[in-house]
Amino acid sequence: MSTRAFAVQSAEALFGPIAIERRAPGASDVAIDILYCGVCHSDLHTARSEWPGTRYPCVPGHEIVGRVTAVGSQVTKFSVGDLAAVGCMVDSCRRCLSCDEGLEQYCEHGFTATYNGPLDGSGENTYGGYSEKIVVDEHFVLAIRHSDTQLAGVAPLLCAGITTWSPLKHWGAGPGKSVGIVGVGGLGHMGVKLAHALGAHVVAFTTSPGKRESALALGADEVVVSTDPAAMAARAGRLDFILDTVAAAHDLDAYVNLLKRDGALALVGVPATPHPSPSAGGLIFKRRQIAGSLIGGIKETQEMLDFCAERGIVADIETIAMQEIETAYARMLKSDVKYRFVIDMATLKAA
Amino acid sequence: MSTRAFAVQSAEALFGPIAIERRAPGASDVAIDILYCGVCHSDLHTARSEWPGTRYPCVPGHEIVGRVTAVGSQVTKFSVGDLAAVGCMVDSCRRCLSCDEGLEQYCEHGFTATYNGPLDGSGENTYGGYSEKIVVDEHFVLAIRHSDTQLAGVAPLLCAGITTWSPLKHWGAGPGKSVGIVGVGGLGHMGVKLAHALGAHVVAFTTSPGKRESALALGADEVVVSTDPAAMAARAGRLDFILDTVAAAHDLDAYVNLLKRDGALALVGVPATPHPSPSAGGLIFKRRQIAGSLIGGIKETQEMLDFCAERGIVADIETIAMQEIETAYARMLKSDVKYRFVIDMATLKAA
Repeated sequence: MSTRAFAVQSAEALFGPIAIERRAPGASDVAIDILYCGVCHSDLHTARSEWPGTRYPCVPGHEIVGRVTAVGSQVTKFSVGDLAAVGCMVDSCRRCLSCDEGLEQYCEHGFTATYNGPLDGSGENTYGGYSEKIVVDEHFVLAIRHSDTQLAGVAPLLCAGITTWSPLKHWGAGPGKSVGIVGVGGLGHMGVKLAHALGAHVVAFTTSPGKRESALALGADEVVVSTDPAAMAARAGRLDFILDTVAAAHDLDAYVNLLKRDGALALVGVPATPHPSPSAGGLIFKRRQIAGSLIGGIKETQEMLDFCAERGIVADIETIAMQEIETAYARMLKSDVKYRFVIDMATLKAA
Repeated sequence: MSTRAFAVQSAEALFGPIAIERRAPGASDVAIDILYCGVCHSDLHTARSEWPGTRYPCVPGHEIVGRVTAVGSQVTKFSVGDLAAVGCMVDSCRRCLSCDEGLEQYCEHGFTATYNGPLDGSGENTYGGYSEKIVVDEHFVLAIRHSDTQLAGVAPLLCAGITTWSPLKHWGAGPGKSVGIVGVGGLGHMGVKLAHALGAHVVAFTTSPGKRESALALGADEVVVSTDPAAMAARAGRLDFILDTVAAAHDLDAYVNLLKRDGALALVGVPATPHPSPSAGGLIFKRRQIAGSLIGGIKETQEMLDFCAERGIVADIETIAMQEIETAYARMLKSDVKYRFVIDMATLKAA
């Protein structure tokens, strides 16, 4: 199936329309007409070869919601006309321990990313959600139980949502727990919303005093400007868990020191240059840990989507046309978005 | 009670005899005639002001075994003539959450170290085990169930033993688990012995090919020379837990990469200069953690001592006279000891 898409042909190129091929749906495949696709910072990193291994043409996009247009003969979970979503993965080995446990993001053979293909660089390239249609094995397709009017805001749940949900759940965010969220951007604003909805006491950390009111509106119980030493010192040893959504290199000790005994600081972003080396003493004297977490598995992604649907939770977004992607990237680089751009894919179809 | 001890009077001074005062035993105190005291690298760091805050005169020593010579009226666990031991702590607040849980080493108000006093620098100095006698509240005194002939080898269990036991137990070392021990020295040799005795598959890491046979003799199932890239690569993603006993700054990623998903690398030493900054990606892509661990609580120290007594486990040691302490330090700095010096305190009494 020839499919219209927006792609870059090299690290220096601008986005423009191309035609890509989507496979005809196989027995276990679901074909989806894409309605909305969120814009993740990973899209930009990949398109511009800021991470190694980009294959061109590159069609980013892994926050995909749409409507099912065809299903294979063995598909049981979806019917034509259903709303459906695709996140960061479209395949994995499905045989290793991590896949068996529903944690395909940690597949021991490497999952196949929704765009830019297998993580190890082998095999075929894949093309993401900056396109009209996508065909995905039903195991990697999520059901959407939000209302039609919420769909644009659902899209970022597929990456920003699950990337914050998975560590929040893994490290036990909930009633009686004090949870820090570092950064109030695309990921962080979802972290605040989800931690709050899970019942935790939420402390949002930002370098921007101007984000105080909006962080409170998202559900933070406290907002700390991380450049204020007194405000930071007042929280020393007070938090059970901190989710750090800031990928830029920064001082981790400032947050480690806020953890209680046995507390964890979880990183979800890979900085372009390493963080300053954290203090071993800060870990040793309270048995604290610095950990990492990668997106989330399919099972927990569905749980997160259902949790959000029940509570009416979506991302706070700004809708753009496909043709505005370069402007959106430029604004994203300046953190000039509250909090996620979402492409209305009707604009690609109309192009 | 005037008590003979060996002390340094400044960072540059040599050890020499002094007289210190020990309090008369209070109602909950146990007075101990010291038979053996292990020599820990912390003794040297403190004596020579390599860590901040040393108070002089400094009498190190926190691997103490001896015999009870007097007990206060409220003491219930010890009688005159019993064997007894004292480790790194002689007091804590006993009211905070960590103290309530038997994890006095994480006391929220800071424990009182066996030497060099309260960790926050307040209050009185304390004098350690390089001395004839010590008087300690019974809560911080351990019972010894080893035989009399094993006592010198028991002494290092009080620091080297518990510092490795606590993280091994906390992170679940046992049957079916593959556990790495980095460094085969004072701490590491106990880590290998204890992990083996707990039933784990033990992989010892050393930079010294010459330590292979002795590491196997200690109980390692495999020995990896960490400077051999092929040997390291062959263990990638294979270990459940790694206890890193090396305090010198080194590449943590080399070990993080050997962990399975959800594996932990636990540090127990504070390097003089920071370790190279670990890779966020190495943590994120397998949800691994880098953590720290500090000695161990009184309850778990007693459990470790009883476990070792039942199995006849002691440290491998070289006994020295008190007067040989400077030579011992010089040899310790060259790692020229298998694996711990222990002072026979009869030599102080005879001096």
